[in-house]
Amino acid sequence: MSDTRTNAGVDNFSTTKKMFTWNVEGERTITIMTAGNLATTQALISVLEERSKTVSERNPTILEQPTMFQVARLVGATLQEVIRDSAMGGQTGTSRFTASLIVGGQIKGGAPTLFLIYPEGNFIEVTEDAPFFQIGEAKYGKPILVRAYQPDMSFEDAIKLMLVSFDSTIKANLSVGLPLDLQVYAQDSFSIEEQTRIEADNPYYQTISDDWGDALRTALQRLPSYRKKETKAD
Amino acid sequence: MSDTRTNAGVDNFSTTKKMFTWNVEGERTITIMTAGNLATTQALISVLEERSKTVSERNPTILEQPTMFQVARLVGATLQEVIRDSAMGGQTGTSRFTASLIVGGQIKGGAPTLFLIYPEGNFIEVTEDAPFFQIGEAKYGKPILVRAYQPDMSFEDAIKLMLVSFDSTIKANLSVGLPLDLQVYAQDSFSIEEQTRIEADNPYYQTISDDWGDALRTALQRLPSYRKKETKAD
Repeated sequence: MSDTRTNAGVDNFSTTKKMFTWNVEGERTITIMTAGNLATTQALISVLEERSKTVSERNPTILEQPTMFQVARLVGATLQEVIRDSAMGGQTGTSRFTASLIVGGQIKGGAPTLFLIYPEGNFIEVTEDAPFFQIGEAKYGKPILVRAYQPDMSFEDAIKLMLVSFDSTIKANLSVGLPLDLQVYAQDSFSIEEQTRIEADNPYYQTISDDWGDALRTALQRLPSYRKKETKAD
Repeated sequence: MSDTRTNAGVDNFSTTKKMFTWNVEGERTITIMTAGNLATTQALISVLEERSKTVSERNPTILEQPTMFQVARLVGATLQEVIRDSAMGGQTGTSRFTASLIVGGQIKGGAPTLFLIYPEGNFIEVTEDAPFFQIGEAKYGKPILVRAYQPDMSFEDAIKLMLVSFDSTIKANLSVGLPLDLQVYAQDSFSIEEQTRIEADNPYYQTISDDWGDALRTALQRLPSYRKKETKAD
């Protein structure tokens, strides 16, 4: 799931897609989500897109990599290249061109997986101990993921959880905003099971957003009340 | 409520008080909470402390100011002075000496109030529209405050809510840690009603921390389930 808000200050914001998919039906599905400097992430996606169309040995494409690990390496190297090129264009630092990526997908012969790619171009893979990734304005939405994520939860519950996490952020920070893009990939399908854009008037989103406040207040009420003596060490 | 974790990198952290009170029984109670560079906030508190002991016209003290607004102005000016002095000590930038403060309290003849003081020395006062302040690592704990705070909640419920907010942060970020300092001030009392340090083995904190995860998962389960068609615009 990704949001679509992009901004260069509060008086310059708009909607932009941050989720990009390359699909070879029956063979590979690769999805990249982006966060950070929009010029950097757009350049990255354009370079990847261009190279996937005109294949040459000098410019390898993510459509030709044999494994998701090799895809992550290639995307990481390309990101580093884009950031370096921007910095050489007359700017003194590289920090303003920073971007992070989540690369997910599956290539036939391998398992589906996710990588978090840092601006430096290196990356980590999802594990049982670290079963999800966030990029961008991640702090507001993290506590609910930490507390409520369960490895055996259904796709439907995971989507509900992500909506609550995004909604917590949207309520607290102007740099994240609707609509949200949602993609569901089913293992070994090598095609996109579902690709939806959740707009502000989406009835399910509205229900979740409205009801979550009540649900939190109810949850809080059920916790035992604070009484003075209870905080004492005795 | 304030935490006590201070760190200069993950291999250099310790416990330090971030809540400081000046009390003139029956006349004024002023509490300052600090976030940011520890050298800066310690210097600030020392300067305020020193001046409150040796009063002179050149060095006004918070114990002599007629209103909380004047206290906030004085504390803001002192903070700016401390940051400027640090920067002049050979450093090129001021950003590394940054600190934020919450100043709260009451002086006889005025209402109790809170101010948020920025590193620049200017400040804002709490209002009905912005009824609480956070400083420091504030993002993780904000969504629950935004959703569950109610102006008419009891002190006990407010303390419970703050504990949940702090606990959400503690579970997600190493820069915030136990013990927590809690102070309760009752209007027109001009003395501290309660001052408690909540340690990790505090039974009430443990109950809140353990039960909140369950409460969140239950709250999530009660929200309607995601079904494909429901995200469609029709």
